[in-house]
Amino acid sequence: MNIAIVGVGLIGGSVAITLKQKLAATKIIGVDKNESNLKKALQMGLIDEGASLEEAVDRCEVIFLTIPVDSILSLLPALLDRIANQVIIDMGSTKERIMKAIADHPKRGRVVAAHPMAGTEYSGPEAATTDLFKGKMMVYVDATNSDEDAFEIMDSITEQLEMHTTFMNAYEHDVHTAYVSHISHITSFALALTVLEKEKSQGRIFELAGSGFESTVRLAKSSPDMWTPIFKQNRENVLEVLQEHIKQLQNVHEVLTNEDYDAFYKLIKKSNKIQRILK
Amino acid sequence: MNIAIVGVGLIGGSVAITLKQKLAATKIIGVDKNESNLKKALQMGLIDEGASLEEAVDRCEVIFLTIPVDSILSLLPALLDRIANQVIIDMGSTKERIMKAIADHPKRGRVVAAHPMAGTEYSGPEAATTDLFKGKMMVYVDATNSDEDAFEIMDSITEQLEMHTTFMNAYEHDVHTAYVSHISHITSFALALTVLEKEKSQGRIFELAGSGFESTVRLAKSSPDMWTPIFKQNRENVLEVLQEHIKQLQNVHEVLTNEDYDAFYKLIKKSNKIQRILK
Repeated sequence: MNIAIVGVGLIGGSVAITLKQKLAATKIIGVDKNESNLKKALQMGLIDEGASLEEAVDRCEVIFLTIPVDSILSLLPALLDRIANQVIIDMGSTKERIMKAIADHPKRGRVVAAHPMAGTEYSGPEAATTDLFKGKMMVYVDATNSDEDAFEIMDSITEQLEMHTTFMNAYEHDVHTAYVSHISHITSFALALTVLEKEKSQGRIFELAGSGFESTVRLAKSSPDMWTPIFKQNRENVLEVLQEHIKQLQNVHEVLTNEDYDAFYKLIKKSNKIQRILK
Repeated sequence: MNIAIVGVGLIGGSVAITLKQKLAATKIIGVDKNESNLKKALQMGLIDEGASLEEAVDRCEVIFLTIPVDSILSLLPALLDRIANQVIIDMGSTKERIMKAIADHPKRGRVVAAHPMAGTEYSGPEAATTDLFKGKMMVYVDATNSDEDAFEIMDSITEQLEMHTTFMNAYEHDVHTAYVSHISHITSFALALTVLEKEKSQGRIFELAGSGFESTVRLAKSSPDMWTPIFKQNRENVLEVLQEHIKQLQNVHEVLTNEDYDAFYKLIKKSNKIQRILK
């Protein structure tokens, strides 16, 4: 089987190298607008060869789209026009707009929408690893709109990646990721900006930064090329959760202004319930 | 030498077990209002024996205060009244109020104020480890107000803990920790509360939570007994940074509301500068 990886960055590169190790008979063909990334992916052995998008699509049975979601949105309808019976895997981090854009396409069934809940704050082929997906969650979105054979092909690949699976519709997916992924990035961006601003007048401010600070701010290393389109496509949901988060912070501010330490204690105690979720 | 550890939790227990390993001739005497913690610390071998505060103070040359900062504030003046020539190490996470409370005490010089920038979201003796401090920063606060011999004793202990050192005054310390430690806890508390609230209507919301979410929210596991007094004592600085952080988030909200994606891109790009600080 030939597999095309369109976008050989962190996610695409990790899919490529993991499948190359697991499926010896598979040929991995990489596609990337960024020539230097494609060259690096070849040198690192993530892919077997590089090709143009058209050539890769025509030669492969399975085509992974692991590019920013704005590129998926503009590329996917044209790709569906081109393919015969191939399977296209949309691995984007947002789903509603993309699903809407292909809803009425006669070849809609050839698309499997899957979002691997895995990633790091790093990007590019250098960041690719074979253990990025292991034990993580693969979210299948609107799976009933995929042809059964297309879904089965992707599901056997998900098994090779050693991932758990869950199913939801595009609306649910976008709401949930706003709450447990996208907002975390915004708080990190804002925290980084807050402290970088203070550094201008205080100089030594980062000398005391420990693991707690690093933990809450590390997502601020994330790529603007990947994340700006995500926030654009999931704008309404992100605005909702951001508003609720600001409200929570304003409540903390008020409680502290009023020196209501009983309320402050209860607020921390209540947030401790997150222990139930985190390992 | 006998060393007293007043408060055998995460920090006190970790000091105890590390010094027990490094300084074979040293006897570690534990003190804790919580009898079950004291018993656990004994069973785990963190301390050699337990004792009352008075007995421990009278028998030890060095007394570590590793208790919540409100307890340090109320206990320290009375301890200074009691000691002869012993050294008291204030390991609290806030400094201005505590330093002010002992500023005019005739035995002020026997206190060394040190804040180890180390910790985890866990608490209690079970959380103690021998590698908590290694390679981390010990901040000496108002060190010129400590007697030279008292400071030298503490500095040789810091060396045993294999920590780096830095010096600042109490005001600087409290401002800096507000920016690179205390605010990180507040954003985690608020993020946990935001998503826990959403769970009530959405149910499955945590199914998609990955390492990014965990990273930004793990500090919400922190103990309210330890943290409420910290926010009480560092209230003004925390309110300042919290206000600035809310302003940054409101700016993100505005940019997204106006669909100004160029500004959004630049905002992420600017926050990426945090790479300079984080490893």
